Amino acid sequence: MPTIDIVLSPALWSLADAKDANVVVIDIFRATSTIAAALQAGATAVHPVKAADEALALGKKGYLTAGERDGKPLEGFDFGNSPVLIQGERIKGQKLALTTTNGTKCFEMAQTSDCHAIYSGSFLNIRATAERLLDENRNIILFCAGWKDLINLEDTLYAGALYAMLQDDFSAAHDAVLLAENAFDMAKKKGVKRYLKVSSHFQRLKNFGAERDMELSLKHNTLDRCVVLKDDELVLSILN
Amino acid sequence: MPTIDIVLSPALWSLADAKDANVVVIDIFRATSTIAAALQAGATAVHPVKAADEALALGKKGYLTAGERDGKPLEGFDFGNSPVLIQGERIKGQKLALTTTNGTKCFEMAQTSDCHAIYSGSFLNIRATAERLLDENRNIILFCAGWKDLINLEDTLYAGALYAMLQDDFSAAHDAVLLAENAFDMAKKKGVKRYLKVSSHFQRLKNFGAERDMELSLKHNTLDRCVVLKDDELVLSILN
Repeated sequence: MPTIDIVLSPALWSLADAKDANVVVIDIFRATSTIAAALQAGATAVHPVKAADEALALGKKGYLTAGERDGKPLEGFDFGNSPVLIQGERIKGQKLALTTTNGTKCFEMAQTSDCHAIYSGSFLNIRATAERLLDENRNIILFCAGWKDLINLEDTLYAGALYAMLQDDFSAAHDAVLLAENAFDMAKKKGVKRYLKVSSHFQRLKNFGAERDMELSLKHNTLDRCVVLKDDELVLSILN
Repeated sequence: MPTIDIVLSPALWSLADAKDANVVVIDIFRATSTIAAALQAGATAVHPVKAADEALALGKKGYLTAGERDGKPLEGFDFGNSPVLIQGERIKGQKLALTTTNGTKCFEMAQTSDCHAIYSGSFLNIRATAERLLDENRNIILFCAGWKDLINLEDTLYAGALYAMLQDDFSAAHDAVLLAENAFDMAKKKGVKRYLKVSSHFQRLKNFGAERDMELSLKHNTLDRCVVLKDDELVLSILN
């Protein structure tokens, strides 16, 4: 039986054995939700980059640009890291370059490993992502972006929710999987929004007026395709 | 209100702000349980060291020695890392040098910080430890030893249990505290032993025949004093 592992912070990534595994990058508030929202709204690809100037360089090549640091939009960019604002007509048929505080660097970290494939995970397409991972039947690493290497609740919760959909067919590699399962069980009991209200990132984003972004990021299965990294760009999978 | 933070792995220690804080090192299976058991059995002090040869050097100076790597006793040592076996008459009035895979190095890491004081945390004296932390009323870091930098369930559970005793008087610094709280809530629901049975370390130690050690390590409040590091050695606090 293949294994499922959960990396709760980028600072723990080096401990995971990514060889030939499917890696799912998770940054619920908000990078991977923004990515799903952009593709859903008709963007043809999202290019995640670590540095702001890389995104701006892609902007000069015709990409739209979205950027955020410490939760706030970056100057000189077309958009912030907002799944709500990204869903306008303007994105349709366009490519987007995205740089954020936590999520986008994780794609780069996974790309330098010997993993099999890299997916972008969000609640917006959690079912499609789970179905793909089940079909592929190989080791999985759920890679939580966290906040500046600190563990966060919403990414852990998503990892636990995905694990709950996969646990009959994959064995838990480490105790972190069990902790994420606990988080999901508690959120089911309390309700997801009530559960996340005490989290540090929820409070931080609320102070920035990003409540609508969080609402949207917690919607389930508005998108029935998974999001996969292909030639450095995230695209909707043609398979599902 | 002072804060309480939980570091779930030594790999995340550098993110914590230890300045002037009380640090509690946690290695339930088994270093910090062995330390409490040894002091309870009459050892006058336990000197935690990172390297095996440091422990053996202290052995030549008259210390009894206890050592473990990868869960197994080390050759040339008086004891393994077993709270059960350490509780013989032989330890009474003696000093003990202890080196283990995960726990003992955490004391050294905390010692090189600018923290206020360092405690050794175990279920055997959880109430006394909580009372001390409440009395001191300063920032707290609960430092889980984990397993080779991986997060483990039993240390997280202890941190969550201690947080539950302190939460009215301290504010949670990060989401890791909330995850530990979830672990404690789930363990209360399922029963601690049933909860920990699926953990990786429980399975590992069971394979080594260390079930009695785990039983002892989960006993609550057999010791009514807290354990504090003083001049490089862990001793029973004279205050409680």
